[in-house]
Amino acid sequence: MSRNIQVEKASVPPIEMQPLEIVERKGVGHPDTLLDAIVEETGRNLCRYYKREFGRIFHHNVDKGSLAGGRARVDFGGGEILEPIYICVVGRAATDVLDKGCKITRVPFGKIVLDSIQDVLRSTIRNLDPIKHVLMDYKIKAGSGDLTGVFEGEGKIPLANDTSFGVGYAPLSETERIVYKTEQLLNSAAFKRKHREVGEDIKVMGLRTDNEIKLTIAAAVVAKFTPDRDHYTGVISDVRNAVIDQAVKLTDRKVSLEVNTADRPKDGVFFLTVTGTSAEMGDDAGVGRGNRGNGLITPCRPMSLEATAGKNPVNHSGKLYNVLAQRAAERIIKEESRVAEAYVKILSRIGHPLDQPLIASAELVVADGASWNNVRDNVAAIVDAEVADVCSLQDLIIDGKISLF
Amino acid sequence: MSRNIQVEKASVPPIEMQPLEIVERKGVGHPDTLLDAIVEETGRNLCRYYKREFGRIFHHNVDKGSLAGGRARVDFGGGEILEPIYICVVGRAATDVLDKGCKITRVPFGKIVLDSIQDVLRSTIRNLDPIKHVLMDYKIKAGSGDLTGVFEGEGKIPLANDTSFGVGYAPLSETERIVYKTEQLLNSAAFKRKHREVGEDIKVMGLRTDNEIKLTIAAAVVAKFTPDRDHYTGVISDVRNAVIDQAVKLTDRKVSLEVNTADRPKDGVFFLTVTGTSAEMGDDAGVGRGNRGNGLITPCRPMSLEATAGKNPVNHSGKLYNVLAQRAAERIIKEESRVAEAYVKILSRIGHPLDQPLIASAELVVADGASWNNVRDNVAAIVDAEVADVCSLQDLIIDGKISLF
Amino acid sequence: MSRNIQVEKASVPPIEMQPLEIVERKGVGHPDTLLDAIVEETGRNLCRYYKREFGRIFHHNVDKGSLAGGRARVDFGGGEILEPIYICVVGRAATDVLDKGCKITRVPFGKIVLDSIQDVLRSTIRNLDPIKHVLMDYKIKAGSGDLTGVFEGEGKIPLANDTSFGVGYAPLSETERIVYKTEQLLNSAAFKRKHREVGEDIKVMGLRTDNEIKLTIAAAVVAKFTPDRDHYTGVISDVRNAVIDQAVKLTDRKVSLEVNTADRPKDGVFFLTVTGTSAEMGDDAGVGRGNRGNGLITPCRPMSLEATAGKNPVNHSGKLYNVLAQRAAERIIKEESRVAEAYVKILSRIGHPLDQPLIASAELVVADGASWNNVRDNVAAIVDAEVADVCSLQDLIIDGKISLF
Amino acid sequence: MSRNIQVEKASVPPIEMQPLEIVERKGVGHPDTLLDAIVEETGRNLCRYYKREFGRIFHHNVDKGSLAGGRARVDFGGGEILEPIYICVVGRAATDVLDKGCKITRVPFGKIVLDSIQDVLRSTIRNLDPIKHVLMDYKIKAGSGDLTGVFEGEGKIPLANDTSFGVGYAPLSETERIVYKTEQLLNSAAFKRKHREVGEDIKVMGLRTDNEIKLTIAAAVVAKFTPDRDHYTGVISDVRNAVIDQAVKLTDRKVSLEVNTADRPKDGVFFLTVTGTSAEMGDDAGVGRGNRGNGLITPCRPMSLEATAGKNPVNHSGKLYNVLAQRAAERIIKEESRVAEAYVKILSRIGHPLDQPLIASAELVVADGASWNNVRDNVAAIVDAEVADVCSLQDLIIDGKISLF
Repeated sequence: MSRNIQVEKASVPPIEMQPLEIVERKGVGHPDTLLDAIVEETGRNLCRYYKREFGRIFHHNVDKGSLAGGRARVDFGGGEILEPIYICVVGRAATDVLDKGCKITRVPFGKIVLDSIQDVLRSTIRNLDPIKHVLMDYKIKAGSGDLTGVFEGEGKIPLANDTSFGVGYAPLSETERIVYKTEQLLNSAAFKRKHREVGEDIKVMGLRTDNEIKLTIAAAVVAKFTPDRDHYTGVISDVRNAVIDQAVKLTDRKVSLEVNTADRPKDGVFFLTVTGTSAEMGDDAGVGRGNRGNGLITPCRPMSLEATAGKNPVNHSGKLYNVLAQRAAERIIKEESRVAEAYVKILSRIGHPLDQPLIASAELVVADGASWNNVRDNVAAIVDAEVADVCSLQDLIIDGKISLF
Repeated sequence: MSRNIQVEKASVPPIEMQPLEIVERKGVGHPDTLLDAIVEETGRNLCRYYKREFGRIFHHNVDKGSLAGGRARVDFGGGEILEPIYICVVGRAATDVLDKGCKITRVPFGKIVLDSIQDVLRSTIRNLDPIKHVLMDYKIKAGSGDLTGVFEGEGKIPLANDTSFGVGYAPLSETERIVYKTEQLLNSAAFKRKHREVGEDIKVMGLRTDNEIKLTIAAAVVAKFTPDRDHYTGVISDVRNAVIDQAVKLTDRKVSLEVNTADRPKDGVFFLTVTGTSAEMGDDAGVGRGNRGNGLITPCRPMSLEATAGKNPVNHSGKLYNVLAQRAAERIIKEESRVAEAYVKILSRIGHPLDQPLIASAELVVADGASWNNVRDNVAAIVDAEVADVCSLQDLIIDGKISLF
Repeated sequence: MSRNIQVEKASVPPIEMQPLEIVERKGVGHPDTLLDAIVEETGRNLCRYYKREFGRIFHHNVDKGSLAGGRARVDFGGGEILEPIYICVVGRAATDVLDKGCKITRVPFGKIVLDSIQDVLRSTIRNLDPIKHVLMDYKIKAGSGDLTGVFEGEGKIPLANDTSFGVGYAPLSETERIVYKTEQLLNSAAFKRKHREVGEDIKVMGLRTDNEIKLTIAAAVVAKFTPDRDHYTGVISDVRNAVIDQAVKLTDRKVSLEVNTADRPKDGVFFLTVTGTSAEMGDDAGVGRGNRGNGLITPCRPMSLEATAGKNPVNHSGKLYNVLAQRAAERIIKEESRVAEAYVKILSRIGHPLDQPLIASAELVVADGASWNNVRDNVAAIVDAEVADVCSLQDLIIDGKISLF
Repeated sequence: MSRNIQVEKASVPPIEMQPLEIVERKGVGHPDTLLDAIVEETGRNLCRYYKREFGRIFHHNVDKGSLAGGRARVDFGGGEILEPIYICVVGRAATDVLDKGCKITRVPFGKIVLDSIQDVLRSTIRNLDPIKHVLMDYKIKAGSGDLTGVFEGEGKIPLANDTSFGVGYAPLSETERIVYKTEQLLNSAAFKRKHREVGEDIKVMGLRTDNEIKLTIAAAVVAKFTPDRDHYTGVISDVRNAVIDQAVKLTDRKVSLEVNTADRPKDGVFFLTVTGTSAEMGDDAGVGRGNRGNGLITPCRPMSLEATAGKNPVNHSGKLYNVLAQRAAERIIKEESRVAEAYVKILSRIGHPLDQPLIASAELVVADGASWNNVRDNVAAIVDAEVADVCSLQDLIIDGKISLF
């Protein structure tokens, strides 16, 4: 059955010619990103368990949850956590699997959640102790399906579990690259080695108006490595210099920078933390409230509201189509040199096979003089191939080869 | 101090001329919308309490939370809730207020949360009993501020609490109006009187490709009013007819419609519920995962990811600027007839007064022949006035005069 | 198989001749008693459900839990609940039942817990609103047994699930009767009609030294019916008079009385409540921490530490043997007039039929001149018959015909 | 003011001459004992914190809580925890301390609870990983007192916070010693070194009828050290031999022994565990449901129902009087050689100084020929001195020098 694929010239001008861009990235230690990472790790570990034990993946979606920030007392030189961070993973899963012989196997979903929380925290936030600083919880129930938890139409293309859409585009704009790489730089192992004072909770906001880029950075500082104000000021200065040094290599535009603007030195207010994340002190989080699949929040670009983290990679169109759209856009840019920018949007039909979306659309900014018919056919073929291959995303996601936030 | 206001011609063509639109609305009984309503009601009730008791609003943000769906057994003619829906409101608030005489007043935040949950559920879902079907919880801690909980710079324009942006646009497109009004129709008192079988959990997805609009509707059906399959089929047919009747009055485009596409009659699978919301059976929710401020999810339009629900209306730029942008766009359309479409974007500067955003931008689709300079100045004045008046939003929000989802 | 029954003369003198007695009763509105009532009601409702749906009772024990008191603001004339009372039922149950056709039935244990909490609160505390004043929760998991949840050896005498003992005695001493009836009086419908100010949280402590009885009563007073100190003083005076009036009819000993001794009028400290129970303000509770099966706490008498509330009435020796011992003691007194006092103790053997305890012992205070051999044989026969009939307790308990606290 | 002290000859015969004794000890790894240890450790750590930071102890009582058992899959040779053990500490404490300058200090009660849970588990159960196998929680609110949390009458003898009684006796009977030492032996470091298969969850029940003692032992076996049935049988045999070897040195009575009677080898049912405690698999617990202050449950002896664990050691008569009664009884036996057995009971008067109980009573079994008047006066003096010195218990308890379970 042929797919409903539509390829059009973009109705928007190239991104760099648009007068305004707003771009945000919440770093790996930001509470929203942390929670996304936790539920996605939980989902991946469930998949691995199901595959290992039963040879196939069972129903699950652990794409909700909340993080309620703790309370801390902090000052230059140190501090302590007064009340722990509360993290709760919410969702559903096949909690007990009934085999053909009417024998039940209990799925260790509780253990999987706890291990996932611990692993993410331990590998993400250097100065947070997941044992002493965190209360873990979960609310996971068996889903609405039958006890077997088998996806319908097994062996064939899974049916979309919802009416939902995915969007993706390529390439990143200059501002987007700068915002993304700024956070990557500050959270890199190399930077942390030199500047252990800088925590993982880093938020970068970029505003481009015509040819001017303003970056606003909030970077948690770890109190125990920061004995006093002078030291703090030095750290902020180091952050500033490193960011500027990198940014000027990425753009010819004018770049300005503000770091920890909310500090009020006169009142003794600084972005100091015990652990390196604001989750320690009342900064709460929800799943799906942070970065989109490309690691950015881009209100001036098409965006999906779907939380990709925690959803199952078998039949959840809200997850798969976002990944698919992003990859298709990137492949178009890579393989069709006459396309300068590509926007891909896909809309699922609940209850229909995932490779039969209601529509898959590509909007293209093409180079002057390009043969449109030819470009259009090439791009349509790429989109068609990507949609046809949607099931291959499953393993890539489980293996952690696709970044989702 | 003059504001950084920028008015430009839109780089996008008019929405009706764009080839593709995807528009979604999650109805008032959808779990995500329910949870947004609950946290916003909690926030408003906190504001009212603070004002009544202390004459001013104290720090709070209750914009996180989760809803873990229950378990139900349902069949034509009836059913029962096996495990209740779990609803947890997460956030922070001034829980104890210390006056100048060093006397503490305990804030009844627990009572406020419970009353808010109960009130929203009772007024939204006719067939849900908030006592028997719901487990309530909350995780609310005192914030990071001092115990007084007073906003900085009281009496003056509050300082933005974060670097965040708001976006808004006007007017709604035809497809957007149809999607919005479809849900409003199905959840109207008049419709419910005639069709009590239709629950409040209604999701409408609209896809426009050129001149064709496809609506996909998922509408929970209340089992106790639906004795058998024939009755169910009749209900679905009634929904279909009502929606089409309304849609054809709103557009000349071709409209097609699918209702409850995920039903599999052969397997006995229907969208039947005890209560009228899928929250009863494992459909979980998070705050800020549903409709944007205009009641829609519009991936082909600029969107903010900020959850507006539950945030304080005093200094939370993520809430106020979204409301502000939306209202400014509407006012531009109303007052400047030469503007066909307006997109407004505002970006805050953390720690700076709310009426001094980093930028407030309007992009306009103007009528041919309009005098651009004149339009620009008029619109700039409107945006300037709206930004200057940002504090007036506070009371409108508390009084429930502004719809947020 | 003959039972190991041992009948001896008591090694203690008659209770009224002992120099010291300490007797306590926690009234129906005391947090510990409330929680016992809630878990027992939950257990009974589970039994009824299992019997109704499946024709037999499945494994369960819901004999743990906690009640974390709320916070209230109270003053003469009224007050309000600031934070609700948190009640959590902890235990295990057959949550899903697998029939022979390998079909699963989901047990509505969540609903059963919630209904039980609501029912107990509503029928016990007149001025508490279980919707506005209480957070409900539960932690109930499937037990360690197989999924069927069937008790071993069905159709036969169930096997004791644990090594545990039960104790009982009869008759009550004079002091015990006075303590018991004091609470019954103050919580009677007749008394409440006249004195609506008196809450249900009433604790009575009795101390007898030789021929003097001192009663200490703590009685919650409902603030909204008590406008001022004078009124309060009048209420306390009414309590005092009613208790004394009744007590003098029950004893010739000297009785003295103290009510709400912890009040400190000078500091404005009174036992005032919004709801009539101290659970509203930080008085926490655990299951099995209150009255024993005869409604009393009697450190000068043999006591079992087993919580009877919430345990299953099928195979839990800790529950059944306490009930059995109490009933056997009462029957001995009733049927064998030569016995003045009877103490019965039974110890189970885990894994053995309930009618085959490791030992069932009766210690008797006999009238002078009684024929011991004859008494001994009669009593042994009574104990034997009661033990043989242990399974009949099941229905009596489920039907609420046996008081457990 | 002179104290109300009453010394009498015991109305009961010496314990060894009574025909029946039932004695139980729940070992350190039994869920009830674990939970008692956790709340007591929490209380002690709160005391230490208050003293260190503020120079005095503030109001608190953390004597409630629940432990909801997990789920495990276990077989000879190993197993895994499927769902963690849930542990919740419930109580109240001064959570924020307001000093004279109207400055608030936040008490790290959350951290204290978590550290206490972790420490107890780590030091008690060798094969339990408190990070992977446990969900921690707490429900601790500020108490009903004022914010300062200061105990009334500071600097003087504290006032009893409740009407409650304590009981104690000495010396232990032969059966009691055997039961106690049996558990101590099996949980000793020496025994564990040789028999690492034996878990910490050990329950010993002793029944003495005249001159025969029957011990029933339930001992969790750690699966990973127990490859098969033969090995298991060997472990049980080792337990049996060790217990008998010790018992015969402690008594001349006939001792018989049953270990893990609930095993049903035919059905493959053994007391195998992953961790060494039944808490891993649905065995729930409550505070105050286990051993009394002398480490035993003794229904044939006077017992208090008061949970001593978790209560504050400043003004909680339910805690202090149990400790006091036990110590007074032991001192009587030690210092007055003519007393063979001593039972001490103390009843508090709420709102009165702790050294002014309503009554302190000693009942004595005295040697034949002893001069009663002299004995009575000596014992009265001992009891008087102990009561007078009640405040000295505070530090002993905080320093962990008094065993409570």
